[in-house]
Amino acid sequence: MKLKVFADRGSQPARAVLIFCKANGIEFEEVQIQLAKGEHKSPEYEAINPMKQVPAIEVDGKFRLFESHAILRFLATAFPGIAEHWYPADVFKRAQIDSALDWHHSTIRRGSVGVIHNTTLAPLFGRPLDPQAAAEAEKLLSASLAKIESFWLKGDGPFLLGNSEPSMADLSLVCEIMQLELVDEKLQKRILDPYAKVRKWVEDTRKAIQPHFDEIHVAFFQMKEMIKKALAGAGSGETKTG
Amino acid sequence: MKLKVFADRGSQPARAVLIFCKANGIEFEEVQIQLAKGEHKSPEYEAINPMKQVPAIEVDGKFRLFESHAILRFLATAFPGIAEHWYPADVFKRAQIDSALDWHHSTIRRGSVGVIHNTTLAPLFGRPLDPQAAAEAEKLLSASLAKIESFWLKGDGPFLLGNSEPSMADLSLVCEIMQLELVDEKLQKRILDPYAKVRKWVEDTRKAIQPHFDEIHVAFFQMKEMIKKALAGAGSGETKTG
Repeated sequence: MKLKVFADRGSQPARAVLIFCKANGIEFEEVQIQLAKGEHKSPEYEAINPMKQVPAIEVDGKFRLFESHAILRFLATAFPGIAEHWYPADVFKRAQIDSALDWHHSTIRRGSVGVIHNTTLAPLFGRPLDPQAAAEAEKLLSASLAKIESFWLKGDGPFLLGNSEPSMADLSLVCEIMQLELVDEKLQKRILDPYAKVRKWVEDTRKAIQPHFDEIHVAFFQMKEMIKKALAGAGSGETKTG
Repeated sequence: MKLKVFADRGSQPARAVLIFCKANGIEFEEVQIQLAKGEHKSPEYEAINPMKQVPAIEVDGKFRLFESHAILRFLATAFPGIAEHWYPADVFKRAQIDSALDWHHSTIRRGSVGVIHNTTLAPLFGRPLDPQAAAEAEKLLSASLAKIESFWLKGDGPFLLGNSEPSMADLSLVCEIMQLELVDEKLQKRILDPYAKVRKWVEDTRKAIQPHFDEIHVAFFQMKEMIKKALAGAGSGETKTG
């Protein structure tokens, strides 16, 4: 199958899909859709993904799919030779990975996106920071990180559900938590430092998926620096017009 | 396999799981966890579902699972004889159902829960109604309903992805939209009336899954009446203390 992955490496679900392909030796063409340039809103891209988000995939020039978890499930089952630990064939083990993937949407994802947008990125979209929305999102995120420690990471192995090797749920959730690199260091420490097991799991996952994890995150860290500069510019702009 | 389903029929994902079991002839014991009485917060139930939500399932007294979409996927693949249309074995068709299920979390679910809580239910939890949060949630919900019309319901058949029979995504999303019965009729009309295809799809899905769909919704409509009364009480309470 000929696979295209439409991605921006600044996007956490896009990175998860790219890392999954690289780690499993799936050949693909990466098509960059630059969110900062609004390329996800073009009519050409809307024909690929009507939700105007990344990632999306195209198979053999005709089958198109969006939603990163659906893409990961598809890749793990449609391509041959994917190691069992990513998405086990056993229905009981698979169900638990599905549970973690589904749980992610309304907890870690919603919390992290809310924190990052309302404490940091909003000015780039011409919106004010929203401390109340940020506080609510931080509360949800912290409660969710506590659940990762008390439930998902219990067991013998270092990965979710006590597994000895990472699943696609580890990959998706850890890429989400990496996104907190975008907020200032003090806030990042306040959020993550109470959760030593989470910190260790992020590091274990990163190490288990090398060199692909770091390779795909290089562009993310470059983006982080660009955002810092843009925000400094937005800040001085405010002063000038204030 | 001996299946227990822990559910409150007032909960939209719990209804989806119950309807799925009934429609597919899966034998199960329904264990009522009454949210209004806080039974989901008991230590006994926390041992079943650490997230303190319904639904959850238990298989053969040992395997436990939460997140309704993970439960639906598990039931469709672990139990024999489930009709293909609910969750096709074909990886391409299944991926599209997965995409709809994943899309649901941050769109229809988030929008509807936000609207219902902030326009209607909040006083029952001792919180004020929040018109701004309600407006934001309504915007997200309306945009998501528009996407159902323009994307998910395009094609020849009456169901999501143009299918001729309902999938578990139709069931989950329609149970979510049914939850709008809890808001006042004027608001419900304002939200749904612009989307005639959505209204027709909800009705087609309901009809396709009879008598189970209506049977499981009886208790929901009873709950709706109880909530109305409780809210009228909460309202007069406010007047007395105001």
